[in-house]
Amino acid sequence: MREVYVVGVGLHPFGRFGEKDVIEIGREAVVSALKDAGVEWKKVEAAYCGTVFAGPMAGNKVLARVGLTGIPIMNLENACASGGSALRAAYQAIAGGFSETALAFGFEKMPRGFIAGNPDDWFATLGLAVNPQYFALKARWHMANFGTTEDHLVKVSVKNHRNGALNPFAMYRREMSYDEIAGSHMVNDPLRLLMLCAPNEGGAAVVLATKEVARRLTTKLVRLAAVVLDSPLYGTVEVPHISVSARVEAPTVTMTASREAYEAAGVGPEDLDLVELQDTDSASEIIYTEELGLCERGEATRLLDEGATEITGRIPVNVSGGLLSKGEPLGASALAQVVEVAWQLRGEAGPRQVNDARAGLTHVYGAYGNCAVSILQR
Amino acid sequence: MREVYVVGVGLHPFGRFGEKDVIEIGREAVVSALKDAGVEWKKVEAAYCGTVFAGPMAGNKVLARVGLTGIPIMNLENACASGGSALRAAYQAIAGGFSETALAFGFEKMPRGFIAGNPDDWFATLGLAVNPQYFALKARWHMANFGTTEDHLVKVSVKNHRNGALNPFAMYRREMSYDEIAGSHMVNDPLRLLMLCAPNEGGAAVVLATKEVARRLTTKLVRLAAVVLDSPLYGTVEVPHISVSARVEAPTVTMTASREAYEAAGVGPEDLDLVELQDTDSASEIIYTEELGLCERGEATRLLDEGATEITGRIPVNVSGGLLSKGEPLGASALAQVVEVAWQLRGEAGPRQVNDARAGLTHVYGAYGNCAVSILQR
Repeated sequence: MREVYVVGVGLHPFGRFGEKDVIEIGREAVVSALKDAGVEWKKVEAAYCGTVFAGPMAGNKVLARVGLTGIPIMNLENACASGGSALRAAYQAIAGGFSETALAFGFEKMPRGFIAGNPDDWFATLGLAVNPQYFALKARWHMANFGTTEDHLVKVSVKNHRNGALNPFAMYRREMSYDEIAGSHMVNDPLRLLMLCAPNEGGAAVVLATKEVARRLTTKLVRLAAVVLDSPLYGTVEVPHISVSARVEAPTVTMTASREAYEAAGVGPEDLDLVELQDTDSASEIIYTEELGLCERGEATRLLDEGATEITGRIPVNVSGGLLSKGEPLGASALAQVVEVAWQLRGEAGPRQVNDARAGLTHVYGAYGNCAVSILQR
Repeated sequence: MREVYVVGVGLHPFGRFGEKDVIEIGREAVVSALKDAGVEWKKVEAAYCGTVFAGPMAGNKVLARVGLTGIPIMNLENACASGGSALRAAYQAIAGGFSETALAFGFEKMPRGFIAGNPDDWFATLGLAVNPQYFALKARWHMANFGTTEDHLVKVSVKNHRNGALNPFAMYRREMSYDEIAGSHMVNDPLRLLMLCAPNEGGAAVVLATKEVARRLTTKLVRLAAVVLDSPLYGTVEVPHISVSARVEAPTVTMTASREAYEAAGVGPEDLDLVELQDTDSASEIIYTEELGLCERGEATRLLDEGATEITGRIPVNVSGGLLSKGEPLGASALAQVVEVAWQLRGEAGPRQVNDARAGLTHVYGAYGNCAVSILQR
């Protein structure tokens, strides 16, 4: 299998953009990534678009505005992992020898408020239709079993908003105080409004290429060492599956996907210099920090208390500001994580630069337990 | 690159199924293909779902009913080529060395009547929002340039309904007379109601595997020799792109995709024993017969008049009954073509069996010019 490199990255800012067309949001991200790569559009051999709400043929509509070059364009949807799915397809196109260059892009324009998705009627009947409710259940489980407190949930949000204040592409580009977060409206106990990410608008794009092409384009080589997409195993609680059994104890999907990614990349969590993970809410950051193997189960709050997950810490988590500060445009969020890690590995992250970053991991997780993990190295 | 084999195929009938859940339609197709393959569900390593209208995470919802095995599940959407996109992704997973077995499946439940899609407001302003209008324009173009007549349009529909009467999975399982078709309601001149396919409901699934796995499962080896997905080139008229230019003359997307497929499979149109192509309408069958290289431009009506495209003819086209008889559930239709060709190559097509079929081609074409072509061989 061939090595795959990230040769160009681009973002459309995350936030609220009024009447701006979602297709235009996607186009701007694509054009930005092509410019960053220094690749002519007609040299790109395949394109993979991730989006949930932009409607049929959204990727085709975006790329029709860039130019009709005849390439395969595939639209992928995997809830919060949609961008990760597009990245995986683009990765396989190059690693498998089907293309020399490929574009993965994603974008979204979501209504205000929490996602109104109603996966199946019986979930709604149980009062479980909306995302925060599942995440609140998981938060309560973690608090009950590992002594995690509301104080920790506040601290995660303080950290991520502090980081996001340094990110010009984030929706909330300001620090939020402990008291502001701790005093915000309770949404689903124990999760308060400012402990939850906001579905919003934005775009992200990544140009991938073979090593040969990458070497021609740049000296700052960033390798996409692994991209894994997994669905849940029976015996786990994943949004919105509740398939627990008295006799089955299975690893969560974040655990399986990250273990496969570590194996594929030939690195372990101890080799990572930064992690961008799915902080749908403050408790999720704590839970996934553990499930990604950055520490043992129940130890993430200690990392947080010690400052280990700060930009200057041992294992910085969500230096971009995470979803809590950036917001979450579903199709774009996984690819925006890749953009952030690529900038960090190229030393181009400005005031939020992690010192000498050499390896980073991205992680998204969403409805139906879709989970995508990638590992980038320089 | 590794060879890829079709080891199992399954259909949910095409038609109208009242209140039946679209997810259940998909599940039945998947279970049918797994049974045909003789493969345990937990041995399938990756899954690719094609659908347009079944909503977010549709593939995950289907497979949650089959069992939560943790595999990657990707939902793909490419208009009428959605199933072809799922097939391409599954093909690349195996050919590229990422999986030993993969499932491609697709399904749809569409409202009655023509597709109400409105790609962009200005198309609607021009009166071009609905599919039949584009296809009627193309039909008129062919009639004006190549002497194709309404008689030919009727004959295509007569043939396909005659074939479909032999197909237990088709929506219209009866022959339709020349007069019935020629006298049906005019929808978009020159296309009458019974010259147009009906968007409907149905499902299809295909299990792919490496040669090694295929040999363990069956002696009736059917090789998936090529799967190509293309989008349009600038300078062509494709639904809903009108990018003609006085200075550009480009091959249509059906021409580019089929040429790439022939090259990848190492066969030419003269080697084919049957073709399943996108007969969205009668004129489309004539136009794509030419664009697929089965004859020269302007010669398809002669093939039709001579009976060459009949089941017993030199190059049978749409022996399944095509979309005209089966109807078109978008996500399922490309995969149902693959199912038909696999049955034909295995000699299992019953009363519509093509004599000694050794190679077949499938072709779908839809909105934004998405076009998928596959070639199967035994």
